[in-house]
Amino acid sequence: MILRLDRVQAELPPPSDPDPVGAGAVQELMGGRFGEMSTFMNYTFQSFNFRNRAGARPFYELIANIAAEEFGHIELVAATIGTMLSGASPNGEKPKFKQGALGGLKGMPNPQQAIGGGLGALCQDSHGRPWTGDNVFSSGDLVEDLTHNFFLETGARNNKLKVYEMVDHPAARALTGYLLVRGGVHQIAYARALELLTGADLTKLFPSPRIPTDKIPESKKHMKNGEHLKLYRFSPDDYREIVALWKGPHPETGEELEVVDEAPEGFEPNDPPSQPAVFAPDYAPEEIAEIAQKLRKDAGL
Amino acid sequence: MILRLDRVQAELPPPSDPDPVGAGAVQELMGGRFGEMSTFMNYTFQSFNFRNRAGARPFYELIANIAAEEFGHIELVAATIGTMLSGASPNGEKPKFKQGALGGLKGMPNPQQAIGGGLGALCQDSHGRPWTGDNVFSSGDLVEDLTHNFFLETGARNNKLKVYEMVDHPAARALTGYLLVRGGVHQIAYARALELLTGADLTKLFPSPRIPTDKIPESKKHMKNGEHLKLYRFSPDDYREIVALWKGPHPETGEELEVVDEAPEGFEPNDPPSQPAVFAPDYAPEEIAEIAQKLRKDAGL
Amino acid sequence: MILRLDRVQAELPPPSDPDPVGAGAVQELMGGRFGEMSTFMNYTFQSFNFRNRAGARPFYELIANIAAEEFGHIELVAATIGTMLSGASPNGEKPKFKQGALGGLKGMPNPQQAIGGGLGALCQDSHGRPWTGDNVFSSGDLVEDLTHNFFLETGARNNKLKVYEMVDHPAARALTGYLLVRGGVHQIAYARALELLTGADLTKLFPSPRIPTDKIPESKKHMKNGEHLKLYRFSPDDYREIVALWKGPHPETGEELEVVDEAPEGFEPNDPPSQPAVFAPDYAPEEIAEIAQKLRKDAGL
Amino acid sequence: MILRLDRVQAELPPPSDPDPVGAGAVQELMGGRFGEMSTFMNYTFQSFNFRNRAGARPFYELIANIAAEEFGHIELVAATIGTMLSGASPNGEKPKFKQGALGGLKGMPNPQQAIGGGLGALCQDSHGRPWTGDNVFSSGDLVEDLTHNFFLETGARNNKLKVYEMVDHPAARALTGYLLVRGGVHQIAYARALELLTGADLTKLFPSPRIPTDKIPESKKHMKNGEHLKLYRFSPDDYREIVALWKGPHPETGEELEVVDEAPEGFEPNDPPSQPAVFAPDYAPEEIAEIAQKLRKDAGL
Amino acid sequence: MILRLDRVQAELPPPSDPDPVGAGAVQELMGGRFGEMSTFMNYTFQSFNFRNRAGARPFYELIANIAAEEFGHIELVAATIGTMLSGASPNGEKPKFKQGALGGLKGMPNPQQAIGGGLGALCQDSHGRPWTGDNVFSSGDLVEDLTHNFFLETGARNNKLKVYEMVDHPAARALTGYLLVRGGVHQIAYARALELLTGADLTKLFPSPRIPTDKIPESKKHMKNGEHLKLYRFSPDDYREIVALWKGPHPETGEELEVVDEAPEGFEPNDPPSQPAVFAPDYAPEEIAEIAQKLRKDAGL
Amino acid sequence: MILRLDRVQAELPPPSDPDPVGAGAVQELMGGRFGEMSTFMNYTFQSFNFRNRAGARPFYELIANIAAEEFGHIELVAATIGTMLSGASPNGEKPKFKQGALGGLKGMPNPQQAIGGGLGALCQDSHGRPWTGDNVFSSGDLVEDLTHNFFLETGARNNKLKVYEMVDHPAARALTGYLLVRGGVHQIAYARALELLTGADLTKLFPSPRIPTDKIPESKKHMKNGEHLKLYRFSPDDYREIVALWKGPHPETGEELEVVDEAPEGFEPNDPPSQPAVFAPDYAPEEIAEIAQKLRKDAGL
Repeated sequence: MILRLDRVQAELPPPSDPDPVGAGAVQELMGGRFGEMSTFMNYTFQSFNFRNRAGARPFYELIANIAAEEFGHIELVAATIGTMLSGASPNGEKPKFKQGALGGLKGMPNPQQAIGGGLGALCQDSHGRPWTGDNVFSSGDLVEDLTHNFFLETGARNNKLKVYEMVDHPAARALTGYLLVRGGVHQIAYARALELLTGADLTKLFPSPRIPTDKIPESKKHMKNGEHLKLYRFSPDDYREIVALWKGPHPETGEELEVVDEAPEGFEPNDPPSQPAVFAPDYAPEEIAEIAQKLRKDAGL
Repeated sequence: MILRLDRVQAELPPPSDPDPVGAGAVQELMGGRFGEMSTFMNYTFQSFNFRNRAGARPFYELIANIAAEEFGHIELVAATIGTMLSGASPNGEKPKFKQGALGGLKGMPNPQQAIGGGLGALCQDSHGRPWTGDNVFSSGDLVEDLTHNFFLETGARNNKLKVYEMVDHPAARALTGYLLVRGGVHQIAYARALELLTGADLTKLFPSPRIPTDKIPESKKHMKNGEHLKLYRFSPDDYREIVALWKGPHPETGEELEVVDEAPEGFEPNDPPSQPAVFAPDYAPEEIAEIAQKLRKDAGL
Repeated sequence: MILRLDRVQAELPPPSDPDPVGAGAVQELMGGRFGEMSTFMNYTFQSFNFRNRAGARPFYELIANIAAEEFGHIELVAATIGTMLSGASPNGEKPKFKQGALGGLKGMPNPQQAIGGGLGALCQDSHGRPWTGDNVFSSGDLVEDLTHNFFLETGARNNKLKVYEMVDHPAARALTGYLLVRGGVHQIAYARALELLTGADLTKLFPSPRIPTDKIPESKKHMKNGEHLKLYRFSPDDYREIVALWKGPHPETGEELEVVDEAPEGFEPNDPPSQPAVFAPDYAPEEIAEIAQKLRKDAGL
Repeated sequence: MILRLDRVQAELPPPSDPDPVGAGAVQELMGGRFGEMSTFMNYTFQSFNFRNRAGARPFYELIANIAAEEFGHIELVAATIGTMLSGASPNGEKPKFKQGALGGLKGMPNPQQAIGGGLGALCQDSHGRPWTGDNVFSSGDLVEDLTHNFFLETGARNNKLKVYEMVDHPAARALTGYLLVRGGVHQIAYARALELLTGADLTKLFPSPRIPTDKIPESKKHMKNGEHLKLYRFSPDDYREIVALWKGPHPETGEELEVVDEAPEGFEPNDPPSQPAVFAPDYAPEEIAEIAQKLRKDAGL
Repeated sequence: MILRLDRVQAELPPPSDPDPVGAGAVQELMGGRFGEMSTFMNYTFQSFNFRNRAGARPFYELIANIAAEEFGHIELVAATIGTMLSGASPNGEKPKFKQGALGGLKGMPNPQQAIGGGLGALCQDSHGRPWTGDNVFSSGDLVEDLTHNFFLETGARNNKLKVYEMVDHPAARALTGYLLVRGGVHQIAYARALELLTGADLTKLFPSPRIPTDKIPESKKHMKNGEHLKLYRFSPDDYREIVALWKGPHPETGEELEVVDEAPEGFEPNDPPSQPAVFAPDYAPEEIAEIAQKLRKDAGL
Repeated sequence: MILRLDRVQAELPPPSDPDPVGAGAVQELMGGRFGEMSTFMNYTFQSFNFRNRAGARPFYELIANIAAEEFGHIELVAATIGTMLSGASPNGEKPKFKQGALGGLKGMPNPQQAIGGGLGALCQDSHGRPWTGDNVFSSGDLVEDLTHNFFLETGARNNKLKVYEMVDHPAARALTGYLLVRGGVHQIAYARALELLTGADLTKLFPSPRIPTDKIPESKKHMKNGEHLKLYRFSPDDYREIVALWKGPHPETGEELEVVDEAPEGFEPNDPPSQPAVFAPDYAPEEIAEIAQKLRKDAGL
């Protein structure tokens, strides 16, 4: 079971200039083979399928706990896309049909982002193909699953960097700067687990790809806060045994890894503005607001 | 963000006679168009993409809160499949290769459940096709999304009943009996939201399909506990405005709907036993246990 | 069985300025989840699979008859796309290879529209993904199928409007203006059937999405002709029982719904001009014409 | 546009012993690459996309007219599947949930035929994969499209024969026996068109594959009626120019090909019986019948 | 088994102006239904599956031998794409992250070519969809497989010409000019095999599509060398029986077809330059070179 | 370019008892995510896309050379499947249609293996889904590609073992016993390359999964020949620099790795017998043989 918090892990700038083409590229981080849906679902299924948890508890808990953090990452990617698409069609007034409120979006890479979705995130990659369960690897063999996860995070870092370099919208940069740091934590976590399980020394594989994360301004700010060293515990009472694995020096900086015994405080999410031109949340948002207000009042809120 | 609890929403029987064919059918409830991955991901994306939350907060919170419950459902389906596959290959001893430890699974409907997965749940439907992001509908238009969700829960109840009738393994029955009740709650929730938003009266569409849930023994037990009337709040502090929508009489029984202001207590999950024949979690689970024990000790656990 | 008429349901303007990008967006109405292939095939399969037709004949006939109209809609969408692509490569002369007759199409959203197809419609959506049988829902349960169909037409209206607003080519506007009206008829038909079967009152769900169809010039002209009120009978002798369901007031205008006891007269379709640059129908269309002329003569035509 | 007739092209036996496994194999003829959805949609799209119809009319009309016949083929395949699945779960009484009305279908090749569909045809192939628009070839180049169509019909005959040999249910045999004859007509039609257009002589490619159709009892009966020689005109008034192409000797028997200037009379379709166990058309079909009866009466029928 | 030669079949120009949009179109020739992956894999699987090779050896060898040439074609297409993408991001210096080294590629048709791949060829078509095994046809029936192959090469020629006309980058032109000639050889080879097996005369189907290959400058140069007449033997010792089928006059020019009893000499392939901005082969290629140099030295090279 | 040899890498037993269900499972090793199509195509595309080959030649050559060996593996898997399917329908006589020559295959896991294919290998996995280009990973970053390849071979060994244990047909056992040994060589090769490039020590990750290959009789025989130590050079003249990487001790046995400077001698492939019931290579194979004989004679063979 999960409990959900109405807060996001990182702060995103509010909507500014819309960037539908850039938003299309950011979709890779949502629904691509190495996107956040993949990390979230891989670790979630591996935790569901974990056999003999009693015998191998720290490993089970590490995977389950990272899965929980990954939910926060699909949330952040969606928020980024919504931010980048806000205002992509004229806002703040009713659609006037003949003028073609969406004319400006003709030719956008994935027209479904406007035709099918209300200028929101899709469960697709940067090329409009849906995320698929084929992206989940869960062999049940612990060494093999950890090897996979290390590789997955490696590929994910590659993709995050590429999107960083391709899209300069401030929301995209804030997102990728943050994810590069947190994805790095997960990459190290799986390498550490492999090392502690087999005795192999993977330290020299880092950084992989060879990204100097501390040279990226939007990442550096999180490193200053030690975000590259912390593994948060995303549970009220469980997953306490992750301390058995997340420890020792950071393979790139040598600083000591640390478990934080609670979730990060997070931030109030942006409330993405209405887009009446795509009927989100309606042709006339103010009427929905009125109805909601009455329902609230009736309920004593 | 989410916090994860190491507990499941419903009690499942422990592994007994394995049923790989039945487990294959239960996969429909995981990765089929109307499976729990679909309900979980539809509501999750709709909540991510919700615009003008301030204006329509009770609706936003209803969707976000139900999304959180659905995570518990994919967890339950996975646990059921793992239970039904435990023992499907000889257990408790090392594989002796020549004998062909998996011979008994030759001809199972989806051989990938053994070849690719370690006798665990796959992110696929009953026919071995992966769940896909194409199953997510998130138009941004609130009336349309709610209409979709009502339809989705209707189709989901259909599928749950069919699996109930096809598979008589006790774990499958416990699962479907429970999900029929909780899925019914979500179906009503979306109908109520539609009614309160538009003024239409959908009461007479229930039950749809016309399943007499109270005639199903594995469901009746949950109805006795009032599980068909309760909407749990799956958040430490948020989603308090769902009370503005979840109220009034149950469309089939006339009893009063009620919000429970916390998550259900849940149950300790089964710990699925090792399956060395498929190397889950390893060829020699006891060695992993030994390593884990040492790591725990080093960490002072 | 069907009989085919060489006429189309609505009048389209002749080819003018080509619009390959717009044609790509119109493909959503052909092969998207909510496109006309979906409506055509959903109702067709539901009619094929209908059990106990004798017992529920008006419902069977309603679905079968609407399926027949939908064929006319895929035909119209294809004609629109062909119109919008005519002239997209230089016409009226043989290709001169070195110059690159298709250079102007480099970078079009879906290059396959030129590379694989002869500037014609594809069985794909706006993002180049093929229509798939997964889009067909046919549960056999009448209430459930009607609920689905109501939802499908709702989503289809959403997509039609979005394409209307995105693409201002006169053929696209003529198409979407017409389909919005006829799709509305089908949406009401399924709602009416549900109401008459269950007693629920869905009137207040209209319009959904909240499109003021009568404000759209290309739709208004068809409403003036009462096209929003008429259900045509698309059969020489069958489907006479649809009158049992298509009656009562239009949920938005209050006008009386009416069955027209024959197919609409329709219009002579445009004959899309040769495009020798893509070898359609050949590198040298005039030679085919000559051969055809001789064959006709031989056959006494 | 089309008009639809409530009649089928060939007579099928009524439901007898159900054969779910056989029905799964027959699905290949519906939704496989060489199934009837493919022939129907290939010729339909080619007719929609045909450029310069005036210049090449007999060719346009041949393709459009055969497309119309193919609708009757998907209809027949669906009717066959429905027939083979009738009675696959206990019929004639209400489902008694605990007993598991669908237990007998556990392990059927495609469980979705029962879980998702109401014992009806799916838009899928014999392996549960959906038919897809990728199966449509429409290049616009007439020689190339005709070459494709000849190849498509060749492959289709192969598949029909294989299903004939694999499944001995009487409905499957009636279907395949008929389709082998009619598919042969279309194969010849495209070869003739190619010959008349280019001057090549394809006669010696027949039969391909080398099936002695007249040795197959279920085919022989149709050959006795000359069904292998007749091209029906499926239109009230159009497609009269097919006589310019469909003429000359049958490449295998030497008999004269003939155009029949109307659709075949056809047969009253079977009315597939209710299957309450899968809620088709409902849990209680008699209640629907009662409602329908009242609606009919109200409408003066 | 195969032996691989580090040489390519045709000479390509070195990287010049990058053309990412054109490279996207060229992908159709790699991973499209009629691309080189399809020809390579169709003939490869047909040769693997060929039954009674002893009885029909010349036919088996023809297919196996052409399969071997097709490997050289996927190699050439990949080399062309790599050439066209070289320099698409700034080269010759380390990435400076903040500047966004890939900004210039935002909006390219398939962003995955940069995000997922290192400016290299993908196993996809021009619309970013992966090549799939569904493109392989291998019925085992020799007449049918040859008919298919003739059709496949026909469609492939169509696509090659369209790409030629759409993309004027010199590498794309060199590629398509060459492939049109060699694809024509394979098309004739399958027609000849069909003729010799059945007695049908397909000569008049040529050219299909009606491309005057000798009018295309980049093709003419290869025709001058007789490349349209030669079938190379791609094996040290096998496939000598192809001479039984590849003989007689060229159907368009009347010149005599000839078997060349060895592989073509080929050309040294271009060595595509490092692209540090996408980390190909690394962030710091010179360090890899240094390591490689040392390893070479250690190995006495 | 490649040269093809009409020899296979390992000896397979001749057809004996057919095993269509087992053949279905073996398909996973052809077209599954970790099957031989995946290893072949991953390394092939990585070699095509390799940038700065001059600088990193030993790495380029290692990948290109292993790719060449993998062709021999898809060949072996296909030969195994053909062997296991031979005789699955009555052989040695003409089909007698009414009896249904394929009746014995009704209910086989993937009916397309008989319906679409002539009892041959498909380009699909064990669940009838086609191999897809999505299985190719080619990032251009050398460390990342090598990490991927190590993981891919790890997963491939898992799958091979599972098929070994599930299917006891002698051809399947001969195949998997051989592939486990050769796949192990490739897994080590990529680990060595990573070690030499980064300095990390991966030795302790072996064996992964923990398969005691020397306990498997069908593998042991190849290990006795030293097949687990040898890297063959699959090229007449190229790829000589692989000696810079393939050296040092075997991580499990400590024996010295060795490069063999030519391809293995291999074995004469089985000639799979005609299956007239599926028209492979024809309804009357003896007639094809007669034609072929005449053509051979005409060609002086």
